[in-house]
Amino acid sequence: MSGREFFTARTVSDALVEFRPSRRTTVESVPLAEALRRVPTADVITPGALPGFPRATVDGYAVRAVDTYGASEGLPSYLGLVGSVRMGSAPTVAVPPGGCVAIPTGAVLPEGADAVVMVEHTGETMPGTIEVTRPVAPGAGMVRADEDVAAGAVLVAAGRPLRAPELGLLAAAGVTTVQVHARPRVAIISTGDEVVPPSTLTLAAGQVRDATASALAALVLDSGGEPVVAGIVPDDRGALEDALGRALAHADLVVVSAGSSVGNRDETAAAVAALGTIWCHGLAVKPGKPTLLADCAGVPLIGLPGNPLSALVVFRLIGVPLVWRLAGCEAAPPEPSRRARLSRDVASAAGRLDVVQVAVGDGSAEPLFGPSALLSVLTKADGYIVVPEPATGLDGGREVEVILYR
Amino acid sequence: MSGREFFTARTVSDALVEFRPSRRTTVESVPLAEALRRVPTADVITPGALPGFPRATVDGYAVRAVDTYGASEGLPSYLGLVGSVRMGSAPTVAVPPGGCVAIPTGAVLPEGADAVVMVEHTGETMPGTIEVTRPVAPGAGMVRADEDVAAGAVLVAAGRPLRAPELGLLAAAGVTTVQVHARPRVAIISTGDEVVPPSTLTLAAGQVRDATASALAALVLDSGGEPVVAGIVPDDRGALEDALGRALAHADLVVVSAGSSVGNRDETAAAVAALGTIWCHGLAVKPGKPTLLADCAGVPLIGLPGNPLSALVVFRLIGVPLVWRLAGCEAAPPEPSRRARLSRDVASAAGRLDVVQVAVGDGSAEPLFGPSALLSVLTKADGYIVVPEPATGLDGGREVEVILYR
Repeated sequence: MSGREFFTARTVSDALVEFRPSRRTTVESVPLAEALRRVPTADVITPGALPGFPRATVDGYAVRAVDTYGASEGLPSYLGLVGSVRMGSAPTVAVPPGGCVAIPTGAVLPEGADAVVMVEHTGETMPGTIEVTRPVAPGAGMVRADEDVAAGAVLVAAGRPLRAPELGLLAAAGVTTVQVHARPRVAIISTGDEVVPPSTLTLAAGQVRDATASALAALVLDSGGEPVVAGIVPDDRGALEDALGRALAHADLVVVSAGSSVGNRDETAAAVAALGTIWCHGLAVKPGKPTLLADCAGVPLIGLPGNPLSALVVFRLIGVPLVWRLAGCEAAPPEPSRRARLSRDVASAAGRLDVVQVAVGDGSAEPLFGPSALLSVLTKADGYIVVPEPATGLDGGREVEVILYR
Repeated sequence: MSGREFFTARTVSDALVEFRPSRRTTVESVPLAEALRRVPTADVITPGALPGFPRATVDGYAVRAVDTYGASEGLPSYLGLVGSVRMGSAPTVAVPPGGCVAIPTGAVLPEGADAVVMVEHTGETMPGTIEVTRPVAPGAGMVRADEDVAAGAVLVAAGRPLRAPELGLLAAAGVTTVQVHARPRVAIISTGDEVVPPSTLTLAAGQVRDATASALAALVLDSGGEPVVAGIVPDDRGALEDALGRALAHADLVVVSAGSSVGNRDETAAAVAALGTIWCHGLAVKPGKPTLLADCAGVPLIGLPGNPLSALVVFRLIGVPLVWRLAGCEAAPPEPSRRARLSRDVASAAGRLDVVQVAVGDGSAEPLFGPSALLSVLTKADGYIVVPEPATGLDGGREVEVILYR
């Protein structure tokens, strides 16, 4: 019974490297206000150089740098003030040799100038004459017209999720819509004769409300996907095949919580086998062993273990990177993490990845043990640590990297 | 001019401790599907214990543990099979002394049983008789009716953003809507005669498109707030007071990018002073010195430096925790981070916090220098490091904590 079940067990590392469907979502155009963490389908080239004009970065006087050479507190350079530049306007005067023009931070450098002296290093001792007490080099106190972005440069790269600064740079360049991958539609199917909707007020004996679908939907949202909660299917081969078929027709990824008992998992595996190719049935991870990965005519499918804790552990490891990849991003953005000292020994088996929930306090990581049937183990956890596949455990007292939940 | 400007400069640490407005957003009720990272306004108490019934966690046989004591491969216990439990149904038989009942993972433990023997440690050598080859202790292979959550226990705590597992636990308990703080409305006002909307196709001399508002809106979304982009206001005291007044009437937090020149910043400070109390004007941080913090009749206001890089640095340090606090969460969720080796020396001044953008590759953090007027410094950065206020710099080669952008 249990021997048959895991006939094609694989490691998590293998799954991450080899179970990489080529499917990508379609292209859509979104305004900047909706583009956070969306993934551009192509490099976006700037329509022009930025800032687009030589620009003062300090308040002061536009000068020819050569006119300030040798200036000091004791022996200032005296420059004739020939005018001023207004913010947001073209300069109306040029800087002649021996002259200067007053300029605010952000304004256009006038013709003739190649530097700006900070107002702190100047004085106007006589009206119309500015004394400069420090020399400046060409380029000081300013940025060149193409110093932020050169003409023809890439503003944002294909395949990298857009962050706040990229949105700012696109706005600065006048790019107000971006071509991005559509959010991957992730169908979430729950199975099990004992599972009822969360809205069920009174449970009959042996019934449990569907916890996994709500939690998975949150992880899908977090990875930039669009969860489509498809409901609960009874442990019946025909009903299961129907539900999977409907989901596969519209989804970019299908996730099915495959029930908790061996019988239920067998039904799910049989239904999946009828619709696609099973890549693995059994994953060398604890918790999460009864995981099934399949390819159904190009649509990836994940059969998750029945208990919510295991299901969430596996979806974080395997599902989250898959959702990002479907959206055109090969490497998922980083998760928060921190270093902590493991408070006691954690055992593992070589060849198996162990995911251990931990509570973090005061620099130490306390492993939370308990049956993986308990959701409260997860709600008490601040994050998890991983015991890698080759290791047989981690010694208490050693420093570990805790992946933090946010 | 510059002496007057920073008359009430404060440190970032002071600002984080002392600039803590008491305002909190109102309460609203949201379904679980919209509750990710929302902050509950009160502890949510479970309507009942979970799982609610003693539940098998393995496939096997429900037994009285005492009947298995001493069992071994060589000398099994023989138990009479009196029936089976169906998934999701009440058991119809009890376990008598010397008897057992077949049970799948997740089903209700029948009366009389206090443990479940895994099927792997049993055999049915004669029809109707199960041989058990390993002893089990009471409580093995099962969870108690209140082992996940006890009656009257707190499911999720007030003030802590809801994560995926909490949503799962709420669903399991039948709680399908949650009372949470409304998303803080963050008004974003841009100022500056040179600033034009991002949609402006052709720029006149000296004009720049508004990059800061788009980037700030993204950071507000990221911190659970609702950005309200209020547009661009010219450098005019009256226009500024009008715009601030309108924003203060509807927002939980007002953010104004205070322009790049000293003159522009003075206008902003004067307009803010007319509407509230300035808590500080000048923050000991680089970049970001010309920051203004004010309280306008209970609504906090942040005056940000004019250049986008400084504005984003300050909003991350000061604004993000403020948005979380307005939503009832005292400690913002963790940012991703990683350790890396600093590739070269970074200078700082004691008493000032330095925020240095870095590119991370292969375990090393390479500081990105360049005028803070350049947005491309930020788009090249993978994150930033902080040189704390007391330090005068960081030596190249030392390990640093990089806060990663996501």
